Amino acid sequence: MPDTTQAPPDLTAWTCPAPLRDQPKVVMGHGGGGVMSAELVQNIFAPAFGGRVLSQLGDSAALSLGGIRLAFSTDSFVVRPLFFPGGSIGDLAVNGTVNDLAMSGARAAFLSCGFILEEGVEMEVVARVSHALGAAARAADVEVVTGDTKVVEAGHGDGVYLNTAGIGLIPDGVDIRPQRVVPGDVVIVSGAIGVHGVAIMSVREGLEFGVEIVSDCAALGGLVATMLDVTPDLHALRDPTRGGLAAALNEIAVAARVGVEIREKAVPVPPEVDGACTMLGLDPLYVANEGKLVAFVPRQHADAVLAAMRAHPLGAGSTVIGECVRSHPGMVVARTGLGGTRVVDLPIGEQLPRIC
Amino acid sequence: MPDTTQAPPDLTAWTCPAPLRDQPKVVMGHGGGGVMSAELVQNIFAPAFGGRVLSQLGDSAALSLGGIRLAFSTDSFVVRPLFFPGGSIGDLAVNGTVNDLAMSGARAAFLSCGFILEEGVEMEVVARVSHALGAAARAADVEVVTGDTKVVEAGHGDGVYLNTAGIGLIPDGVDIRPQRVVPGDVVIVSGAIGVHGVAIMSVREGLEFGVEIVSDCAALGGLVATMLDVTPDLHALRDPTRGGLAAALNEIAVAARVGVEIREKAVPVPPEVDGACTMLGLDPLYVANEGKLVAFVPRQHADAVLAAMRAHPLGAGSTVIGECVRSHPGMVVARTGLGGTRVVDLPIGEQLPRIC
Repeated sequence: MPDTTQAPPDLTAWTCPAPLRDQPKVVMGHGGGGVMSAELVQNIFAPAFGGRVLSQLGDSAALSLGGIRLAFSTDSFVVRPLFFPGGSIGDLAVNGTVNDLAMSGARAAFLSCGFILEEGVEMEVVARVSHALGAAARAADVEVVTGDTKVVEAGHGDGVYLNTAGIGLIPDGVDIRPQRVVPGDVVIVSGAIGVHGVAIMSVREGLEFGVEIVSDCAALGGLVATMLDVTPDLHALRDPTRGGLAAALNEIAVAARVGVEIREKAVPVPPEVDGACTMLGLDPLYVANEGKLVAFVPRQHADAVLAAMRAHPLGAGSTVIGECVRSHPGMVVARTGLGGTRVVDLPIGEQLPRIC
Repeated sequence: MPDTTQAPPDLTAWTCPAPLRDQPKVVMGHGGGGVMSAELVQNIFAPAFGGRVLSQLGDSAALSLGGIRLAFSTDSFVVRPLFFPGGSIGDLAVNGTVNDLAMSGARAAFLSCGFILEEGVEMEVVARVSHALGAAARAADVEVVTGDTKVVEAGHGDGVYLNTAGIGLIPDGVDIRPQRVVPGDVVIVSGAIGVHGVAIMSVREGLEFGVEIVSDCAALGGLVATMLDVTPDLHALRDPTRGGLAAALNEIAVAARVGVEIREKAVPVPPEVDGACTMLGLDPLYVANEGKLVAFVPRQHADAVLAAMRAHPLGAGSTVIGECVRSHPGMVVARTGLGGTRVVDLPIGEQLPRIC
């Protein structure tokens, strides 16, 4: 008989691994996509689940099944509020998973969708979220094919939590993963950063910044397809969501064992995001995006890839922000406007919780 | 630009569809797998998401991708308590999705796993759930390949909510779906029913029934493979979870437009489940199972399939409970011990909420 019919595992001998020892309870930072999230994965999930694929810790898993190459990814969504300027939890649930698949070069084909509803939530809210999710799926050319609904008692949950998982085909000849990044690779970001996180914060806190800041939430499968038309030889792609651009760059630097050097002035931060971040005490490099990507491109293809990105509506603001270097492997360094440098650390937790 | 960057859809013209009009707010029954769940899917999710595959409403979606046939399924898990006799939310998260895939004849290959953790939950609880999930995955021979963690504030959530999605290959020549069921098909259940729901209820309510009732939670991929070794021509399979055997039989009867006739005395209800149900005012036909299946098998294969099931550890209690008939299409009728008949309706909501 399988283990599954036995009593829960005896963990009386379990001791909390060292990095978590100061945190015997879950805190918000464990969901932040930074150091604490990584500690949770490395010390609890990875040993418990084992497996070669999970250990790669990419945005999605690249799998072989029945002779084809699949990308497979999941995200849960607990954003507050459910609707915000530029999108909703339904848009995020589609675009978040579509984008994770796109970061391995896969075009999303199918989505699953799990609803956890709170007893007492207005049926109209469920309908609005569902319509937004359906519209986002059609815009991203992905089909919702299977789903599930659970209901929890009033006072638990927060109206609507969502989970999506997605499957996409990885095209032949495409092998996009952090380990392929080498010194000399050019780092390109597809447009203005920090917009989604600031948009959420402004509505959550009722802040006014003179202009309404609208989330950049969008599906990036088409932009990535455009880039792959130039060359299948993209080395790595990341969508800088939780933890922002800083987390994405650090993850690549560590996985590829290269240094990443960015020019701070080259990072596109819109004035309204910059202003809001100053007021809120945030660093735009650490603020989440939901419709941007950062690409690590071989030098010989960088100009052509950049031109193709700029010609796509979702990549019009694309720009080179830096390059990969042999020095300081595993570390991200920013050249400041004053001619100095500063280390861009992996964030510990999350500046703005529940932004996705 | 895609819809995803626009404002939330304007639903000012939206009117709650008729069947939901008496329920303008979500209630527990919408997650119960009965009439109310179906109304939610038919009136909100299906119109919002569209799509041909979702409309089949099976346990999993059967898809074509890159020339292979995939099964894809998802479930969220909100069971209380997290640990119960015979299993945990971690076991359910694996077995629930593995079993949904098995019901289309697919052997699960890969799982995703999304955690929604409540701030303040003990890290040891997260570790115990993770270890149980990992052990269940190894027992079911499925690999957890991608995951995600979100954290919500203390007082929201319930410690741990889980979502899994799974992918499996559908073997050549296998085409298992409700629409293939025809009059004359034999209805076989793989063992004692009602055990999981009563196990959960007994620990939740602190009830004592003389003997401890242990959940039947198990992965059924191996049992289904054994059945397919006899013949690939199984017509339909269901794991009778929420809504119990009654919901599973009704769904097949409606989808296949056949009548289903069961002999009430033939349905295997263990004495302790029967006793607990009597005490709690429950009907065992409506109580959830997590390690059982009901099969609709062409008459000429029924004896051989039944023998193969009985030879498998998870099918030792298999028995024929009835057959499909031409009369009363879409309806399930039970022949009672007294020579009469009664209609076995689709449940409205759920007798025992949050059992998975």
